[in-house]
Amino acid sequence: MKIYVDNAATTKMSPAAIQAMLPCFDLIYGNPSSLHSVGQQAAEALYEARTQIAACLGCHPKEIIFTSGGSEADNQAILSAAKIGSRKGKKHILSTPIEHHAVLHALQKLQKEGFSVEYLPVNNLGEVTPEQVADAIRPDTALVTVMYANNEIGTILPIPEISRLCRERQVLFHTDAVQAVGHIPIHVKQQEIPLLSLSAHKFHGPKGTGVLYAQKGTPVASLIEGGGQEGGRRAGTENVPAILGMAAALKEACLHMEENSTKVTALQSRLMEGLLQIPHSALNGSPTHRLPGNVNICFEGIDGERLLLALDQQGICASAGSACTSSSADPSHVLRAIGLPRELARASLRISLCETNTAEEVETIIHAVTQTVASLRSCSPLWNDKVEGRKPFLLK
Amino acid sequence: MKIYVDNAATTKMSPAAIQAMLPCFDLIYGNPSSLHSVGQQAAEALYEARTQIAACLGCHPKEIIFTSGGSEADNQAILSAAKIGSRKGKKHILSTPIEHHAVLHALQKLQKEGFSVEYLPVNNLGEVTPEQVADAIRPDTALVTVMYANNEIGTILPIPEISRLCRERQVLFHTDAVQAVGHIPIHVKQQEIPLLSLSAHKFHGPKGTGVLYAQKGTPVASLIEGGGQEGGRRAGTENVPAILGMAAALKEACLHMEENSTKVTALQSRLMEGLLQIPHSALNGSPTHRLPGNVNICFEGIDGERLLLALDQQGICASAGSACTSSSADPSHVLRAIGLPRELARASLRISLCETNTAEEVETIIHAVTQTVASLRSCSPLWNDKVEGRKPFLLK
Repeated sequence: MKIYVDNAATTKMSPAAIQAMLPCFDLIYGNPSSLHSVGQQAAEALYEARTQIAACLGCHPKEIIFTSGGSEADNQAILSAAKIGSRKGKKHILSTPIEHHAVLHALQKLQKEGFSVEYLPVNNLGEVTPEQVADAIRPDTALVTVMYANNEIGTILPIPEISRLCRERQVLFHTDAVQAVGHIPIHVKQQEIPLLSLSAHKFHGPKGTGVLYAQKGTPVASLIEGGGQEGGRRAGTENVPAILGMAAALKEACLHMEENSTKVTALQSRLMEGLLQIPHSALNGSPTHRLPGNVNICFEGIDGERLLLALDQQGICASAGSACTSSSADPSHVLRAIGLPRELARASLRISLCETNTAEEVETIIHAVTQTVASLRSCSPLWNDKVEGRKPFLLK
Repeated sequence: MKIYVDNAATTKMSPAAIQAMLPCFDLIYGNPSSLHSVGQQAAEALYEARTQIAACLGCHPKEIIFTSGGSEADNQAILSAAKIGSRKGKKHILSTPIEHHAVLHALQKLQKEGFSVEYLPVNNLGEVTPEQVADAIRPDTALVTVMYANNEIGTILPIPEISRLCRERQVLFHTDAVQAVGHIPIHVKQQEIPLLSLSAHKFHGPKGTGVLYAQKGTPVASLIEGGGQEGGRRAGTENVPAILGMAAALKEACLHMEENSTKVTALQSRLMEGLLQIPHSALNGSPTHRLPGNVNICFEGIDGERLLLALDQQGICASAGSACTSSSADPSHVLRAIGLPRELARASLRISLCETNTAEEVETIIHAVTQTVASLRSCSPLWNDKVEGRKPFLLK
């Protein structure tokens, strides 16, 4: 039996989410745009799912735009804000260097089109302050986009405060909440967030669907043109099965958030404590403002990818960083941004837990990582140099 | 039991496609970008699906770009071609007025950005000739985009000829083959097509997935930026379940294409014959170059939407045109483009059959439509005016 602790990359679907999808394949299979009863049955199911998701986020069903996932939602939010801003002569965007590539690459696209993108430096825990945002806002700022919680190091950013500030300064704000929704309390109305992206497969929902939430009055341009679906803001036949699965998964995640969080936080604490017993190791990210399931630790002298593969052979599925860039040889842009030298950025392991992981699994992981790190270090010339005193240790 | 004959809007998933998807929800649930075994299992399943789809289309697996559906594929093909063309100073695009809105609205977006889009007029069957294309190509033509078969009237366009011609003239060619793939033989290599869009839910596959085929050497720009998925041409965690469902559905459709086509064509012929017995009715679209399942007929003096709703009450699910625009009060742009006056464009019914429809269902439809058209006409003042000779009939 595998120990799957890569829940930040993707999750196993919950039975409730699967059950919600199944009837859509051959019973509620109509096109919601069709006027006949088979189509209208699908339209009603879609409306119910939209209402459920809106209730979980604390918004109105019309403020939900269904997309094919978090990347599409991020792209649409950013490109749309840029398009609308540019009509008013606003071509400055504020962000951070630790965003997901769906945000960073969309911003790079805009830079090529003449936008000026400013990345607020984060501290060594991956945090930015509302004051930094306040100081950087300019009269021509079209958008501030800051993630809710980081996918690699788990740091939770002060989004309600940043969002409130942007509202006061009348600057549009977007948050990539892909890692946060379903895991920590988010209420878009109370937190006054105008644009938020989420992805279903990060909270035991299906792949291939997500949401761009856009507060009433926030204009949103289409990324995909065509039919008049989603109030003209996203064309294409609605992915009814996946949307129903997402609604069921989100409802479940929100309903059990407190108990899940308590359980996962306990596993996380024990895992951190156990792994930080390993000599010359350090926690990446914030020890206090952190997603419940995220553990990211660097072990000096090892290669993260080799650690990951050795763990996999012992049945433990973890990650060396973001799944989206796992095939890249570059060290994590997030770990580099919080100030880790290349050597340590490459020596990091991300474990992302969920509520179905167990205390026994955590003990197995601690044991396996401890053994494997020791074994990898024993065959590393780099490490042996250090032990022999030829190079100083970076970590205690 | 409903008679579902709106298969051009969407189809019921086939049991084989559902079976292919099921294991992906909680067994093969990894992120294909993850390096561990759970991720790699998903990556292998994805590769197999890609290979299967490539075999069905007659291309190489690397030429397949998975998208969230036909609309995204159309948008990406067109916006990408425009972007690449514009770098070489080419800002002219050729198309037809009967394209799907995913094409037309993407083209309108480009027109606002300064592109010159020329819509080749179609004849009264919805056809354009390769000669029309040849005459209209200019030195600054960045793209020719012509659909493979029309979604409303079923007319099949001479795509291999148009594509060959574009190749000779060194102009990029794209075809929206959403209605054609899985229904009529398409082999992208033999037919020398460089860019083609398809959507899974039109051939008993799942909603939420599709393909942009891009021939090797044809540069394609991303529409959604982020992770390096799909060779850097489409970011976002791959929708593994839906892609596996699509592969199973396409394989099945291609394997049984000949027998399905024979069966559906027989149903179609009988349905046309039966419905054209109704006085003052006429077939829309080509009688010879036509998709096997498509029947589109106008019945003078009736309101298509009222006919559709009356049929729905009798358990028959058909359409008055494209599902994507069914909520719009405007008459079909396709029927207007083939020269139908507004009155007749609004008086049309689309029935789209598939291989699970039966001869009995066809007889039931003929009977129901005949009765309903007569009944609607009897209460229409417009019709009674005509019968009393105050207005001439447009149709025999």
